[in-house]
Amino acid sequence: MGGVLRGDLTNGLPASERTTVRRLSDRGKYDRETIHAILDEALICHVGFVEEGQPLVIPTIHVRIGDELFFHGSNASRLLAVIGSGAPVCVTVTLLDALVLARSAFDHSMNYRSVVVLGAGRLVKEREPKLAALVALSEHVIPGRWDEVRSPSEQELNATTVACIPITEASAKIRSGPPKDRAEDYDLAVWAGLLPLSITAGLAIPDPRMKHDLLVPEYVRDYCRCES
Amino acid sequence: MGGVLRGDLTNGLPASERTTVRRLSDRGKYDRETIHAILDEALICHVGFVEEGQPLVIPTIHVRIGDELFFHGSNASRLLAVIGSGAPVCVTVTLLDALVLARSAFDHSMNYRSVVVLGAGRLVKEREPKLAALVALSEHVIPGRWDEVRSPSEQELNATTVACIPITEASAKIRSGPPKDRAEDYDLAVWAGLLPLSITAGLAIPDPRMKHDLLVPEYVRDYCRCES
Repeated sequence: MGGVLRGDLTNGLPASERTTVRRLSDRGKYDRETIHAILDEALICHVGFVEEGQPLVIPTIHVRIGDELFFHGSNASRLLAVIGSGAPVCVTVTLLDALVLARSAFDHSMNYRSVVVLGAGRLVKEREPKLAALVALSEHVIPGRWDEVRSPSEQELNATTVACIPITEASAKIRSGPPKDRAEDYDLAVWAGLLPLSITAGLAIPDPRMKHDLLVPEYVRDYCRCES
Repeated sequence: MGGVLRGDLTNGLPASERTTVRRLSDRGKYDRETIHAILDEALICHVGFVEEGQPLVIPTIHVRIGDELFFHGSNASRLLAVIGSGAPVCVTVTLLDALVLARSAFDHSMNYRSVVVLGAGRLVKEREPKLAALVALSEHVIPGRWDEVRSPSEQELNATTVACIPITEASAKIRSGPPKDRAEDYDLAVWAGLLPLSITAGLAIPDPRMKHDLLVPEYVRDYCRCES
């Protein structure tokens, strides 16, 4: 396994052999601030769980509140049932920042920021924290939207499952910066550098069934993933 | 489990209870063409596997060749070792297409296209198919790049592990189109519609260590994820 306990954990999460970055370990980060920032910027996550020995990975939205990750879904959602059951899960988020174009095929890479959280969840059943999580999920995806739309009815609230996972065992992995070629490859006449990638929003498309003549709200028009 | 065998499998993948979309089953698609198109457009995937009962989810790049998915990594990569071992894995790709902004909080959604592939992999050890997979991986990420860069040396090839998974048990899940509000909510004076999202490339950033005065190649300058 090759896990190494780390000494420098200023404001960091507890060391865990399972979350220690082993391949390219200089890319591993374990401080709370780094991990939280990546979780907060990511629009979606991929949740892994095990069903009869088979791993399953399902995309969903998440939001971090303090040191917990919250999820929501229909009462019929298998994913929410699994998270709520306390079974071991893995939540992974990945932000792609750039293609790293080196001079050799071998040294191509990507710049990315990813976080892996291992944990066991619980259901959030009480009305107030459940509603708070739904507000936070909405604000995570598109800040400003919640205040403008119809709030959930009691029936809708009862039809929604909310579950959460403590962020206690987690690590981030980050690659940044220019390509790293072998010394002799720098002589090659090959264009090298970064091609930045980001999730960007296009022009909003009004619902054809809108009955009112409304401007696109500012928080929709100026939507940007990078400042969440 | 609620799995349902499907009758209409024209050019489709074999029915499997495990890959049948259960929640919002009208979003499930099982035809080869749909599944392949989503796998081909996605820049990265998330691979789930199980280690001592703990699910782990790791992002990586993939490429489809025919009815197989190929992966590569260092010989030291745990992920590649697991895929190559034939242990059960789950490969999930997710393309986010839009935020779906409804009139009620409850009916908000996302437009997306996702694919889940369940399978057991094998190592690709022979030189020619291994090299072919590396070329295909490169072309999957950035078409045109391979021909311009230094090809892998025998040593680099030997330091690289390639593994593949047959795409035999897979399903796609797709949401598209405008928000679907409750009938009475259409009267609300709330802007509703879609906010399209896509992965877009910014301006290429030349490596400060370039020794040659080279233009940004066309395939970098015109990079677009949507036509891969």
